[in-house]
Formats: sequence, structure tokens, C-alpha cells
Amino acid sequence: MSEESSGNTRKVEVVPSPALFPVYFENRDCTVVVIDVFRATSAICAAFESGIESLIPVATMEEAIDYKQKGFLVGAERNAEIVPGFDFGNSPLGFMDGQFKGKTIVLTTTNGTRAVEMAKPASKVVIGAFTNLAAVCDYIEKEDKDVLLLCAGWKDRFNLEDTLFAGAVVKQISKNLRFTNLSDSSIAARHMYDSAEADLFEFLGESSHRKRLSRMNMEEDIIYCLTLNQSDIVPVLEGNVIVSNK
Amino acid sequence: MSEESSGNTRKVEVVPSPALFPVYFENRDCTVVVIDVFRATSAICAAFESGIESLIPVATMEEAIDYKQKGFLVGAERNAEIVPGFDFGNSPLGFMDGQFKGKTIVLTTTNGTRAVEMAKPASKVVIGAFTNLAAVCDYIEKEDKDVLLLCAGWKDRFNLEDTLFAGAVVKQISKNLRFTNLSDSSIAARHMYDSAEADLFEFLGESSHRKRLSRMNMEEDIIYCLTLNQSDIVPVLEGNVIVSNK
Repeated sequence: MSEESSGNTRKVEVVPSPALFPVYFENRDCTVVVIDVFRATSAICAAFESGIESLIPVATMEEAIDYKQKGFLVGAERNAEIVPGFDFGNSPLGFMDGQFKGKTIVLTTTNGTRAVEMAKPASKVVIGAFTNLAAVCDYIEKEDKDVLLLCAGWKDRFNLEDTLFAGAVVKQISKNLRFTNLSDSSIAARHMYDSAEADLFEFLGESSHRKRLSRMNMEEDIIYCLTLNQSDIVPVLEGNVIVSNK
Repeated sequence: MSEESSGNTRKVEVVPSPALFPVYFENRDCTVVVIDVFRATSAICAAFESGIESLIPVATMEEAIDYKQKGFLVGAERNAEIVPGFDFGNSPLGFMDGQFKGKTIVLTTTNGTRAVEMAKPASKVVIGAFTNLAAVCDYIEKEDKDVLLLCAGWKDRFNLEDTLFAGAVVKQISKNLRFTNLSDSSIAARHMYDSAEADLFEFLGESSHRKRLSRMNMEEDIIYCLTLNQSDIVPVLEGNVIVSNK
């Protein structure tokens, strides 16, 4: 049998919303890439690039408050704003000055950290963003497992930017004959990325979350989040903690 | 205020999977278009075009058996095959000879009739397929409500053909300034339809359900389901029964 036969290829599926994760999560021995381009996963990649030691993602404000009371550095974002009383939010630019170098930080966000929580039963969970696209694709290929590209979306709705990133991953990894068993959602995401690749910023002009962030004067964050391959680190979940693969 | 201001425009959202319907269903006073291109909604349109009086959609086999025992003409499809003992399945070509003219029929299918059931709380529920695309778009514009394009998918997974039809509707109705408040899922579906429009059959070559039906020698059905505007009837749900809008 050739490598192209479906028996020997890995399934690559895009999960368009966290609410659909249970539908797609059939094989636990898979690599789940958690995607929240604006801005949680871009921020996590930036935090590791700036030298943090590890990051504890938590889904709820209750857990975040608990860590804060124990003296941890805790970031909390809800509805695109820093929650008052917390140390930072999910702006990737907030990590640029290296203030958290060598530290363990805690983070909760509207969509992204909830998606990480959901993916925990998978054998591998990694953090993907345009800023570490090539590194994530290399990682997936080396793992050589079925792949679920989990779009964090916006409150369980489909969103454009996460799907575009998923499409970018599908486009790259499906060049490898091991990753050619594409679901309909993967085919759709790849087509979308083909349409958008030449100018992601322009393509996302109409998208709901870009408009939301633009209204909040977050254009700099948007540009950062859409700039490819600024980091070769893949943040990987180990137990309840995200660490660098380096 | 101009008609372009968002306060005066109707929301148009594509629901990528029935499992996400509760997330998108916020305003009950909306038009829901149920979409199951391969093949339930194409078959329902064909049945009305061939002159049936009405169609009772049922979600479960239990209900279908109940109607059968009461003497109704009942169609039942599961996993793309007619359930043994039933009168027909969901092949649109099965309605072409006019054998059900003037009759009331009952139908249950893997995905489509379940989606109809789910949509019942909406103020208007209509049946959409490429075969009645223009008629559905006219209907939506006249109703002048928010629009949910509900893709029946395949067992709660995203599928290409239903999303493409949704994209075709978005493309058409968004020419009308009343229907320009597009969600991310609508923008994505419209982009996909732009890529596919020139040759739907070719575009769907890789899709999971086209492959599933091709393996089952259903190419004729596929070609029929992808041929635009063969009917100007819009099947409309009234209570628990679907009737023609004519």
C-alpha cells in the first residue's frame, strides 16, 4: 500500500467551534492545536518568546482569583478588556518588555483558555497562532498523529481569523503525504486561506472581532497577531501547565 | 438614517452545524432556511415540484414507524440508504414520476428532518436547496426578518455542500441593502461560494458526502442536487407540516 492510501494517512479536521469539539474528538491519541488568533494564543506565544518559564491556563474567573490570592502573576481578559485588579490581559504586546522572564504566569480569557481546558483529554495539546505557524506545522508532522485544529471562536460562534489560521496549517501540512485525509471543514478552511493569504489584514476587514478590536484601538495588536513566524517556540500543554517545547 | 446603518439591516448568519443552532438562535422572529443539499431538502423540493400536497417531517424512526402503521406513505433514510420496509428514501429522482401527486407524505432522514425539528420555534422555517435557490432568496427578502441559514451537515459535522448553498444565498440576498449585516460564518460561506460557483460539481470532488454518494452510485442524484433553480416553490413549515408557498 502506498502512503497515499487512507489507511496510512492522518486525519486532519478543523473544529469550527469549541461547542463542536465533542463531535470531532473521536481519537484521543491526536494532536489538538488550540487557536485563538485574536488574541489569547498569539499572546501565549509572545509570552514564551519573551522568556516566561510556564503558563497556567484557567477557564474561569474563580480559578484566576484563587491563583491571584495565592500570589501568582495573573492575567484575565473578558470581552476583550483586562479585568480590573489583574496584572495583564491578552495583548501580545504586553509581554514585549520581558517583565515576566523566567516566571510562571496564570491566564484566563473569554474563549482561548476555555478551549485549552476542553482539549485536555487529548494526548497532545499545543498552542497555535500565525506568529508560530511554521513551528506548529513542524511539530504536528513530527508527532505524526491525527490532528484537530480547534478554533476557539467567539462565545461558541464560528470566526474568520481562527479558521484562516487552521486553513494555513492544513495548507502547509497537507503537502506531506501523511496528512492528506482532510475533512470537509479542513477543505473549506484551506480554500478560505487561499483567498486570504495575500492580505490577511484586508481579508479580515469585515470580520466581527477585527471590528470589535478596531473600535477599541487595538490595531497594533491586530497587525502583530497577523504577522507570520515571529517565534519558533511551540507552547505545549503538560498536565495543567503550558511549557515551551524548546 | 440610511438603510445601510446596522440598526435597519437584517442579520444574516450561517449556522455551520445543527449542534450550534442554540448558539445562533437568539431572535425567534427570524426566517430559518433548513439546508441539506445531499439530499433531504433537494428531495423535499422535488416532491413539491412533482405535486405532493404536504410533507410531515419527523426526526426519529419511532415516529416514522408510527405513521407507517397508521397507513401513511412514509419515506425513511439512514446513512444514505432507504430503511427496509419503507416506501421511499431521500432521492429527489424518486419523486419524478409524480406517483405522490396530491398526497401527504411523511419523511425522516439522517440529518435534514432533525434540523427541521430543531428550527420549529422560529417564526418562519423554509426548505432550501440549489434547486429552489432563487425562490428561497425572493422569499427571504419579502419576509424581511433576520436570517439563519441552518446547515444540516453530517451528524453534527460541518459539510461543504450545505455551506456552499448558504454562501449562494448570502451572495444573492446581500445585494439587497436590508441584508448586509453579515456574521463571520456568512462572510466565510460567501467566499467559499465565490470559489466554487463556476463548477460546484468539481469543487465538491473532495467532499466527504459527495464521495460517500459516489461510492453508492448516486452520481445522478448529485448532479440533480447541484442544478440551480429547477423549482420556484418554497416549501414552508406550518405547525408540524411542510406545505408549498404557492
